[in-house]
This record gives sequence, C-alpha cells and structure tokens, in this order.
Amino acid sequence: MIALFTDFGLHGPYTGQMKAVLYEMAPDVPVIDLFADAPSGNPKSAAYLLAAYAAWFPLGTVFLSVVDPGVGGARPAIFVEADGRWYVGPGNGLFELVQRRARKTRSWDIAWKPQRLSASFHGRDLFAPVAALLARGERPAGRLRGDGSERRAEWPDELAEVVYVDHYGNAMTGMRAAALPADAKLVVAGRTLDRVRTFTDRPAGTAFWYENSNGLAEIAVNQGRADRDLGLSIGSAVEILTAA
Amino acid sequence: MIALFTDFGLHGPYTGQMKAVLYEMAPDVPVIDLFADAPSGNPKSAAYLLAAYAAWFPLGTVFLSVVDPGVGGARPAIFVEADGRWYVGPGNGLFELVQRRARKTRSWDIAWKPQRLSASFHGRDLFAPVAALLARGERPAGRLRGDGSERRAEWPDELAEVVYVDHYGNAMTGMRAAALPADAKLVVAGRTLDRVRTFTDRPAGTAFWYENSNGLAEIAVNQGRADRDLGLSIGSAVEILTAA
Amino acid sequence: MIALFTDFGLHGPYTGQMKAVLYEMAPDVPVIDLFADAPSGNPKSAAYLLAAYAAWFPLGTVFLSVVDPGVGGARPAIFVEADGRWYVGPGNGLFELVQRRARKTRSWDIAWKPQRLSASFHGRDLFAPVAALLARGERPAGRLRGDGSERRAEWPDELAEVVYVDHYGNAMTGMRAAALPADAKLVVAGRTLDRVRTFTDRPAGTAFWYENSNGLAEIAVNQGRADRDLGLSIGSAVEILTAA
Repeated sequence: MIALFTDFGLHGPYTGQMKAVLYEMAPDVPVIDLFADAPSGNPKSAAYLLAAYAAWFPLGTVFLSVVDPGVGGARPAIFVEADGRWYVGPGNGLFELVQRRARKTRSWDIAWKPQRLSASFHGRDLFAPVAALLARGERPAGRLRGDGSERRAEWPDELAEVVYVDHYGNAMTGMRAAALPADAKLVVAGRTLDRVRTFTDRPAGTAFWYENSNGLAEIAVNQGRADRDLGLSIGSAVEILTAA
Repeated sequence: MIALFTDFGLHGPYTGQMKAVLYEMAPDVPVIDLFADAPSGNPKSAAYLLAAYAAWFPLGTVFLSVVDPGVGGARPAIFVEADGRWYVGPGNGLFELVQRRARKTRSWDIAWKPQRLSASFHGRDLFAPVAALLARGERPAGRLRGDGSERRAEWPDELAEVVYVDHYGNAMTGMRAAALPADAKLVVAGRTLDRVRTFTDRPAGTAFWYENSNGLAEIAVNQGRADRDLGLSIGSAVEILTAA
Repeated sequence: MIALFTDFGLHGPYTGQMKAVLYEMAPDVPVIDLFADAPSGNPKSAAYLLAAYAAWFPLGTVFLSVVDPGVGGARPAIFVEADGRWYVGPGNGLFELVQRRARKTRSWDIAWKPQRLSASFHGRDLFAPVAALLARGERPAGRLRGDGSERRAEWPDELAEVVYVDHYGNAMTGMRAAALPADAKLVVAGRTLDRVRTFTDRPAGTAFWYENSNGLAEIAVNQGRADRDLGLSIGSAVEILTAA
C-alpha cells in the first residue's frame, strides 16, 4: 500500500499527477490519500502528525510524503526505512519523529535519477517513482546517509502545540496522550481543559481534550468548533497542568 | 462496490484510514467517494439525500454511511438490507428513508467485534470492516433488530427543506420532484420559483427549480449561486404552491 | 488510464457518480483525478490548462472533460482524438488548444445513446460511458464532425491571462514559458516580475514568474500567496515585457 501525505491540497493537478506515475509504475498497489492537507510548508508540525498516523498502517506501507518548502534548493531527497515501513520525501526533518521512535531505522540519499526532473515538482518526478519502486519490492539506487542532516535532534519528543485542525474544527496537538499524566489538564488560550473519554461525555458547547483515534491529545468542543471557539490554529501553544 | 457517504470532509485522515481498512479486507472491491460532505452532524437531512442517491447505484452496492454526532454514545451500530443494497452505520435515523421506501428491508445490530475500538472513530474500527465483509459476500455477526429504535416514523415522506448545497451553490431539497404536482411552484426566502427542465431554459441570473439528475427538487440560479443569491443553507424551509 | 478534468469540485456526488459508471463499464482501467476545480463554467481558460496538462500523460489516456455551462442546451457532445490521446466532453471550445497543437486530430459527434439521459448531468449519463468505451479500446458510435462548430479559431495561441490559481496561491497563465523570450518579464497588477528557475532563488516575499512543472508560465511569491499578494484571479490580464 502507498499512503500519500502531502500539503498539496486535494484540488489542482498535483496529487493526480503523482497517482498517474504510481499507477504506471506499480499498477497493482493500492494508493491511499492519508493527508493532502498536512501543515502547509511546515515540516516540523507535519513530522509529529506523520509519526502518529503512520504507526497505524500495516508493515510494508510506503509513505510518499511531500511537505517541501525547499523544493529545488539544497535539502536532500531521501528514503527511510523505519520498523518495516518506508518513507520517501525531502530530508527536512519530516521523518524525524518516525526515526526517533523506531527501534530500527536507516536512511538513504536517493541516487535514482529520473529522465527529467522539474525544478518545482519533485513529488511527481522523483519521490513518486521511488515510492513505486519500493512498493514493488525493489530497492531504488541510494547512498546510505551518514551526516544526519535530515535529522532534528533539537525538536522535543512531544510537541506542545497544535499541529493540525481537522474538518470539524478539532485541534490535534503534537503530544501523544499516553505520554501525559492521566489527570493532566491542558491550558490553551487561557482556558483549562479536562480530559474526557468521548465527545458525548460533556454537554454541547463544552471544550475538553481527549485521546484521539490515533493516540494524539486532541482539543475539541462538543457540537462546536475548537478552532473558532478557542481561537486555535497550527502552532498555537498548549500548556500541561498536572495536579502534583 | 462500496460507496462512501460521510460528513468527514475530503481533507484529513478519516476517509483515507477507512479506505486503508477496505483495501486490506476487500482488495478487489472498488471504493467510490459519493459524499464526503453530507450534512454535518445532521442525520435527518442526510437521510433524504442518501435515499435519493443510493437508488441510482447497482444492486449489491454497500453504503458505508457515517453521519454520527453521537459516536461513542448510546446510539446503536447497525447494518441494513434494503431492496438488494446494504447500508452500514449508526442507527440514528440515517437509513430511515431508505428503509421506508424499500419493498423489503431488515436491520441488524452489529455483533461483530473489532480487536480494538476507539471511542471516536467507529467509521474506521467498526463500520468499515463490516462494510468490507458485506462487500465480500459474507454476513457479519449481527442480531436482527426488533425495537425499531433506529427508525424515525415521525419524519415526513418528503422533507420541505434544503438538505444539501452543492459546489455550484445549487440547493437540493428533501423532496422528490415526482412527488410534487407538475405545476408546483416553490417559495423560498420570499421568492416564488417556477419549474424548468434545464438551466439553459432561463436567462442568466434567474432563480428556478428543477428535477435534478437523481430525482430531487433542486433550486438553482442560471450562472449564479442559489445559496448566496437567495440566502439558502441546509435547513432552509421550502413552501409548495399549487394552482388548485 | 482515464483522467478526470472537471469543474465539479471534489465534494458532492458528481465525481463519485461518474467513477461508479467508469468502474462498472471499465473495471480494470485506473481513474485519476486530474482537475476537479478547472475554471468553473469557463471553457476558454480551461482549454489552455487542459492542453498543457494532457501533454504530460501517456498515449492512450482518455480525458473525461466536463466544463459545461451549456449542459442540456444546444452545444454538441463530442469525442476527439489528438496525437494518440482521447478527449470526451462538450464541444464548446474546451478541446480547441489540444486540437490546434496536435499534428493529427479528428472529432466526432457522440451518436451513442444512453438508456436514460438526465437534462443536467451529461458527465455521468453520456460522457462517462463514452470514456469507458474508449478506455476499453472500443469505438463508440459517432459521426465525424465537419462543421467545426466545436473549434474557436479566434482564441490566441497563448492566452495572456491567469487561467488557474492553485492551492498555494500560485497563478498559472495560459502561456507556455517556451513561447516567451528568455528575458521576458511579466507585468501584472502594476508589478513587473522577473523570471526565476525555482522558488528558492528569491528571498521570502518576492514575486516572480517561472516555468512550472507542466511548461506554463506561472506567477508565484516565495513563501507567500500570489493571488492575495498581487490581487490575481482567473481572467487577470498579464502583459509581456521584453528588452528589445
């Protein structure tokens, strides 16, 4: 399975052109749109989101991951193996949390060369073909990375910020709920939020946080929109409040 | 064929994660995005939309249908057979019109249990696997329903409200055009609208109603947007005016 | 491969219903969403966009193309062969640039008749079945066109206007970069823009133009939005400035 994780949006030709390459090169591999609205031009927020969602997918999944504000510039183009899943995309920190949390991981510079490489669309011309090769069980030409320039050791293990706002206005943070004390409250925009198990535990209009279906601490308002009601967007800071 | 009918939006990971389950469990079954923007958190409006669109699909189609504001609460999780098509989702009235209009229908509580059930994403953890089983021709574990708590006898046969606004600003009502007198006019927002056969029957800027391609009475403005020009949104009341 | 080029938007049932027809009639043919947000109701702008993007696809691709403000009216319903690719849709000029740039092209009126033709959704009822037949290698019933009423000889070879604004706010023009002098500047909204090779060639906030990954001259702002920063939208005029 190939899962797409990009900031392309679903409109426009970008996702479609990548899929055309995938179908040409790996016609029998299903392609899944995971995120087309990953944090735009923001590999750091995207890295926490990708790590949380990738863990849910079966072993062998190839994540074609393009959040790449530096396309055409000096950032490396890489592929990564981490605990039996593959990742292809820019070496700008996007895979930092995936690699940090993996028991076993390696990364390669892409040495495979397309016939034609546009300056602005490496997703189509470089990353999609490499993802297709990996999904077919082949190993694209690559050089094992050693300099660690794709890593970001300075980023925290859990990011106390909003990293994504979904269709319902719910605000996902970059923190795994399991990493927080059971009685932790979250403080955002001057409001202190309790933890609940599910939306229907609180009256309509109440703000709270809960462990979302992929393990992230997520802020929501029952029958409301947390983004609008609390003024949240990607990058909004979150504070953790514990009893002790 | 599995058709997706949800209020998830196309962005974000929700539809993609459901599709990943479907491809894993039923790899040979095509999956169609029918609506990802069904009326949000509004099973009543959604029920009229689903009934109109489902009737167009081939027998055997499985509708994975998630408009589920009560996820994680007390509403039942069900699957329904109606005139040779299958429906899986919450028992909150979403299938009321499908069942009411069917010559033959039965419904079951889902007894099949996933290995892990998140509190907030039954679409992925419960409804998608059940839809995949049905699409493979298997019968998931279930208990025939008897209490009728998934039904909504008090809802009208035709809903005189806007139930959906499309990309062009056209406003679909919950009424089938065939259920209206041939000379019926519709009154919305103080405007009385004639019936036309097609958009090009009226000058640019004119508001009218017509039978849309799935049989619903739909309000439109030629080369305009009915939602903006007439101030319509989901729930806007529609009055029927007949000559006699 | 069937590529979809429409102004339907991705939301709502329209694309899904077309895909259901394609899967029923040509189950083994991959279907790619190329543009669902082609210039709305604007076959002229769409024609320049389609010609630029279609050229990238493999021979044999069928473009199911629906930008059709006159649906249900007098415009012809056609299919076109141009240099080994197929196009199906309304004969309203949408294929003018594809045909003009082709070494070899022919067009047919669709004579194939569906069992039921709705007045407002020829994409589903007429164009999708014809596209499926072509993708299966069959020739649908058709009459070779002779009157040229689907052509638009008065449209320029390169359209000096914005024809599309993408998810990032970049504004594509209807001009091929290869048709412009190497040192050409573009003037839009009172601003004179230099040509660059790639985004990272200029400081954040700078506006410029470049050859996009499909050969069109495209206006962008590094780490900004050209549409907002320069006030551009579909139809905005572009002036070409050359040194001498």
